[in-house]
Formats: sequence, structure tokens, C-alpha cells
Amino acid sequence: MSKLVIVGTVAFDAIETPFGKTDKILGGAATFIGLAASQFDVDATIVSIVGGDFPQDYLNLLSDKNIDVSGIEFVKNGKTFFWSGKYHTDMNSRDTLTTELNVLADFNPIVPKFYRDAEIVMLGNLHPLTQISVLDQMDNTPKLVVLDTMNFWMDSAIEELHQVLKRVDVITINDDEARQLTGEFSLVVAARKIQDMGPKYVVIKKGEHGALLFHGEKVFFAPALPLEEVFDPTGAGDTFAGGFVGYIAKTEDTSFENLKNAVIYGSTLASFCVEKFGTERMQDLSKEELNTRLLQFKHLTQFEIELT
Amino acid sequence: MSKLVIVGTVAFDAIETPFGKTDKILGGAATFIGLAASQFDVDATIVSIVGGDFPQDYLNLLSDKNIDVSGIEFVKNGKTFFWSGKYHTDMNSRDTLTTELNVLADFNPIVPKFYRDAEIVMLGNLHPLTQISVLDQMDNTPKLVVLDTMNFWMDSAIEELHQVLKRVDVITINDDEARQLTGEFSLVVAARKIQDMGPKYVVIKKGEHGALLFHGEKVFFAPALPLEEVFDPTGAGDTFAGGFVGYIAKTEDTSFENLKNAVIYGSTLASFCVEKFGTERMQDLSKEELNTRLLQFKHLTQFEIELT
Repeated sequence: MSKLVIVGTVAFDAIETPFGKTDKILGGAATFIGLAASQFDVDATIVSIVGGDFPQDYLNLLSDKNIDVSGIEFVKNGKTFFWSGKYHTDMNSRDTLTTELNVLADFNPIVPKFYRDAEIVMLGNLHPLTQISVLDQMDNTPKLVVLDTMNFWMDSAIEELHQVLKRVDVITINDDEARQLTGEFSLVVAARKIQDMGPKYVVIKKGEHGALLFHGEKVFFAPALPLEEVFDPTGAGDTFAGGFVGYIAKTEDTSFENLKNAVIYGSTLASFCVEKFGTERMQDLSKEELNTRLLQFKHLTQFEIELT
Repeated sequence: MSKLVIVGTVAFDAIETPFGKTDKILGGAATFIGLAASQFDVDATIVSIVGGDFPQDYLNLLSDKNIDVSGIEFVKNGKTFFWSGKYHTDMNSRDTLTTELNVLADFNPIVPKFYRDAEIVMLGNLHPLTQISVLDQMDNTPKLVVLDTMNFWMDSAIEELHQVLKRVDVITINDDEARQLTGEFSLVVAARKIQDMGPKYVVIKKGEHGALLFHGEKVFFAPALPLEEVFDPTGAGDTFAGGFVGYIAKTEDTSFENLKNAVIYGSTLASFCVEKFGTERMQDLSKEELNTRLLQFKHLTQFEIELT
């Protein structure tokens, strides 16, 4: 079992979908990543920041999953990062209604001492310099660094993004962002160009159309599970990443074959995340449910053909 | 080996893509279906109609693949159906520039006597009444009837479409059309509703995002092979259908497990079709190339996870 450092937002979200809307609920990339990774009983810490308005109950919720929260800075007089958004009918696109950085504006991540020798580091979507700061605090070069990012940093901090990319083993990125980062329409070509930027493994997330894992000339694909209803896509990408790193931390195996399995676990966990608002579905997810759905994934994708 | 009846257009296409453009070249749904099915050395006939302008060379090309062309009516004083279109940069959308029905306007399909006891019938995209006419000519109810259709018939002949759907075992349809036919956004729900209309197997084609096979509560997914470059998508859907029915005709097995394999073969063949203009790539495709790509498909999708 490898130690796992997760850096990212712990936040409030307010979400509106065609199915309903929420008040401020628990959200944030690191929250979703941590909850997904906790399915693998890993020794994980979350490095983040919250304000005085952040309920102890939410921290307890993470601690109860054996996630170390000592790396979550508590700014008594500050307010927690808040995002609100509204999804369109197709659930693939959304409008951001509010982004209040609040305490996140001055976030200076501190990795708890006990976790500075962690083998796996998950850099959730944040300013690339914040991500670099976490890597700089590690005692050694971690066995595997996984980075998530988004188009916002390509627009506003592309040089810093390239700096951190050089120190990353795996990037998870969505299809449009992969195209933006490389100027290539073909995802095959884009993935090759991104590997030249640093990460030797490139995971391209296509939302309801699944995810691709590229490594050299190898490629693996995991579909998203076809669902009757996507209730709330918020956090699905982070849940995917959390399942991905959680499985690797548990198995301590960074081979391509094992990363394929990690992609399947990530997709499986993401399929739960979207079934309810926010983190609700992930909070009470059982191992039995996870295993049942993994079997569905097998049936969805596995076939037996004898070549003729 | 089952006999296979293919009804559909044999046509001229003129295609423009970001990579270039063609003059009038060989096209048509039945042409693509036939070429794909011929990979399985099936005993197939094409039921169609062409004009006096249709080159004997094109008919020879089909005959050389052991496709019976006696069901292709030759109207000496007529002109062959002609379609021209231009693809947008993303290759997923296109504008139709020209549709000249010509001899197709009076198409009255005649199934050759030798093929009226065929076990497999592939109804390519045509007016639903034309599709029904083919079924009416069969000696017995075929073992498997596969239908392809499009939004045009939903707009212009929905009642006739529902008539033919009642007599069909498998429908292949794209995602937008499945949504239009059912009024459901979720493909899972749409597939269920389509099964209630007749076909017990529903194949939903998602272009570059792969294809789903639904049957009762079962679902199977085949991705499209990630390609460096899609050169010309024309005929990919028909090639998929041709590979699908060709494999079933060869194996004579209509179980869900075997239909999964048929979907994989359809996807594999479609991945070749898009590599060159029109039918060019399909004309000289070898069994070795097909097998090599099937292996790529296995590597793309197959994984080994032990449940924990």
C-alpha cells in the first residue's frame, strides 16, 4: 500500500440540473478524489484550504473514510471556495454562475510531514505553480505523479503549466483540452504531443463517451457505463482520477497493464458519482456495489473472438 | 453459411473533405454493405438499381468479391442515384450538396429467386415501403432481419417505418436518430423503447464514439478504433452493418454473445473504410489486415481485473 498525497480544492458547490437544484453542498476536486480513492483503503492525505464557514461534519466525513485531513488549512476568518453552476439539458455542457475563490486566493499548500515520502501524488486541478509547490515539498521524486488540469490554466498560465508537465507521469485531461493544449484535432496525435511535453501516460476523458489511456504506441479505452439517467455530472472527472490513483496506490503497480485496470476502476466509480447530487452517492458507496458494477463493465466490454 | 440478401443503394458519390475531393466515385449503402460482408466469403446478393451510366467495371468489382449482382436492375436510359456532400473540419458533420434520386425514384426491388430462402436479410437505408417489399418476397420469415434507417424517414414516412420495424430483429441507427425516434435523451431508455417497437436487438452507432448493442437488459459496447486521421467517413455506418451481417451469415449464430462479436467485426471494418475515399480501402482489404486490426481492438478494450 503506497501513501497518497491529494492536493486540490475542498469547497462548496451549488448545482442546478434539469432534475433539481441544491443549496451549498460539499464539493471540490480533492473531496471527490479522496472519496473515490478511499474505496481502496489507501493511506491518503488531502492538502487543501477551507474557511471558518466549513462545517466540521464535512471534515469528519472525510476522516471517517480514513482520509487524513491535517493538510487542510483552516482559515477561521476566511470563507471557503464556492462554485455554482447550471447544467444544460444534455448534461454535457454547463454555465458557471458563481466562482468565489475566497481563501483559495491565498492558498499555500503544506504537505504534512508524514506524507512527504508518499509514492503517489495526485495534483488536482489548481494553478500550476501550486501544483509545483507540492512536488517541491516531497522528500524524493514520487513513484507516480498524476496531474489534472483544465483549459483555464492553458489560457492564463501556459508556461507554468508546461513547467509542471515536465515533472508529471500521468495527465488526465478532457478531449477539448487535449486539442487546445496541442492544436491537434486527432486525439491520437494530441496524446503523442502531450507525451513529448512530459507525461508518459495520457488519459483523455470524453465524459459520457469514456476515457482513453495512451502510452507510447499503446492505447486502451474504457467506455462510460451507459446510464438511464445522469443526475449530476459534477465531480465525475475527479472521481475518475481518485479511483485511478487509489487503485494504483493500493496495488503499487505502475505498469501499463495495471493502469488499464485503474482506468476501469476510475470509470466505474465515476458512474456512481453522477447518480446523485455532489458527493452524496460516493459517501455511502459499498464495496459490494463497486464489485457488482465492475462485473457490468466486464459484460459491457469483454468479448471472445477467435481469429479466422 | 447462411445466404444473405442486401437491399440498398448502389450509387455515385462525390465527396469533399478537408483532405481533398473526388469526382463521381462508386458509392451507395448496398455497395459498402456488400464489400464489408464479402470479407466473410458469404453467399450474398445485392438488390438495387442503377442507370445506363453505371460502369460495368463497378459491377465486376462486386462480382469479383463473389457478390451476386443479378438483383441489381439496369435501367439503360436512366441515370444512377447520385449524392454529393462536403464534410466539416470535425468530420462528424456534413452538408449534402446534391441528391439526385434518378432511377431510385422508381425502384421496385426484385429479390432473385435463388435468394428468396435466405436466412439473413439486410435492409439498407431506403424508404420503409421498399424495405417491406423485400421482406414480402421472401419464401419464409428470415432467421434475422437487420434494418438501417435514418431521420429522413422519421420525418417523411414514420408510419411506414413503424410497419417495417415490427418485422425486424435488429435495427442499426445513430444516436441522434434513436433520440428522435423515441423522444428520449438517454440512449438506455431510447433502446428500450425501440425494442418495444419491434427489433429485439438495437445497435446505436455513435460514430467516432463507438457503438452500443442492446438486448433486453443486456448491453455491449464497442469503441471506434482511435485513428490518427479520419480521411472520409462516407460509408462507415454501412460498412459497420455489412461486417455485422456478414459475420452473422458466416457463423449462423444469432445469440447475443455472437452479436457482440459481430459488432466488433463491424467496428473493425468501419475503421478501415474511413482511411481512404469511398470504397477504395475496402476494395483491397486483406484478411491479414483485418485480423491484425482485430488484435488491436482486443488490446484496446480487454482487461484483467480480479475483484477484491
